[in-house]
Amino acid sequence: MKFDPSLYLILSTDLIQKNLDDFISNCIKSGVTTVQLREKSKDSKSIYELALRLKSLLKYTSTSLIINDRVDIALAAKVDGVHLGQTDLPISKAREILGEQAIIGLSVENQGQVINANHHHLDYVGISPVFETNTKTGLSNTWGMSGVEWVSKHSNHKTVAIGGITTANAGSVIEAGADGLAICSAICSARHPFAVTSRLQKIIKLSRGYE
Amino acid sequence: MKFDPSLYLILSTDLIQKNLDDFISNCIKSGVTTVQLREKSKDSKSIYELALRLKSLLKYTSTSLIINDRVDIALAAKVDGVHLGQTDLPISKAREILGEQAIIGLSVENQGQVINANHHHLDYVGISPVFETNTKTGLSNTWGMSGVEWVSKHSNHKTVAIGGITTANAGSVIEAGADGLAICSAICSARHPFAVTSRLQKIIKLSRGYE
Repeated sequence: MKFDPSLYLILSTDLIQKNLDDFISNCIKSGVTTVQLREKSKDSKSIYELALRLKSLLKYTSTSLIINDRVDIALAAKVDGVHLGQTDLPISKAREILGEQAIIGLSVENQGQVINANHHHLDYVGISPVFETNTKTGLSNTWGMSGVEWVSKHSNHKTVAIGGITTANAGSVIEAGADGLAICSAICSARHPFAVTSRLQKIIKLSRGYE
Repeated sequence: MKFDPSLYLILSTDLIQKNLDDFISNCIKSGVTTVQLREKSKDSKSIYELALRLKSLLKYTSTSLIINDRVDIALAAKVDGVHLGQTDLPISKAREILGEQAIIGLSVENQGQVINANHHHLDYVGISPVFETNTKTGLSNTWGMSGVEWVSKHSNHKTVAIGGITTANAGSVIEAGADGLAICSAICSARHPFAVTSRLQKIIKLSRGYE
């Protein structure tokens, strides 16, 4: 399966107001190309079972499924890959465990981490965070638009912009060079999530000059 | 390496007052046969690095090293195995990932779980909790001494008594049939941890009629 991070949903199921199956089906229909399951307060069994459920929902689609942090759950549920932060398992170990075909992404929070990531077999880096966000707190710095430009220029990998991405700034972020937009609360907590995803997918195409 | 759960230390490094390397070295000298690393509030990278450090400390000993819950960290650090709770990954998945040689243990909290565990390839069950404990809260029931007897009689696996084990009750627990004693705070938080481990090792031998 070709990995397309264009519209990358970070899914925290606690934020979802609706039925999860309907939510995911509608996300796919409205253009979500990758789903990352990020559950910070659930036990391993619950995350594993959620992963299996999502995998089944995504089965006949081209949408990739990635698990945050938990390489074992990704392996057990046989999903497409993992997203690692700087305080997760080393990339080399995750690659060794999951194999060459797995999708492995890494959050980069400063220029040194971007350069260091160039030496690793990764499928993308997450430019984290681009803007301030309510989903993640306690982060020391934001990349801003100039940071997105810098990472897109200096990284060997695909780049996904994470943190504070909305329909208002999505176009500029893509124009600054990001290959994808990762979005959590702006989709999960939205009153009309599919209006948001459809709009984002249009913005991405427009900003790339597809339309 | 032969797995011996007789004196099974559950290590939470936050509880250790002393230098970790000294603490572990002294634990081994004073008779600890298995170490389980249980870290509930640390990030994956920190747990992985702790696992590597412990592995190195245990390298030329017969003491086994097991990680709580995190099958990926056990695999990445190449330690001896994992301990799983009822809300962790399924045993069959952990076995598939870690292989036939790995030590895999499971906490059992009621009779149904003991019988169910008999159908799985496990190296031991943790009779959890035997008594009330400060380390784990919110548990609905304790096995008590009659529970240890029941599990030891009905389980196909080695049995390790977990929860509230002290020098005061250790002898009775072994006499009730447990193959090992798992101890966290009574060792980690003790003023003189090695006096405790030495005493426990003596009690285990005495209660088994070795001496």
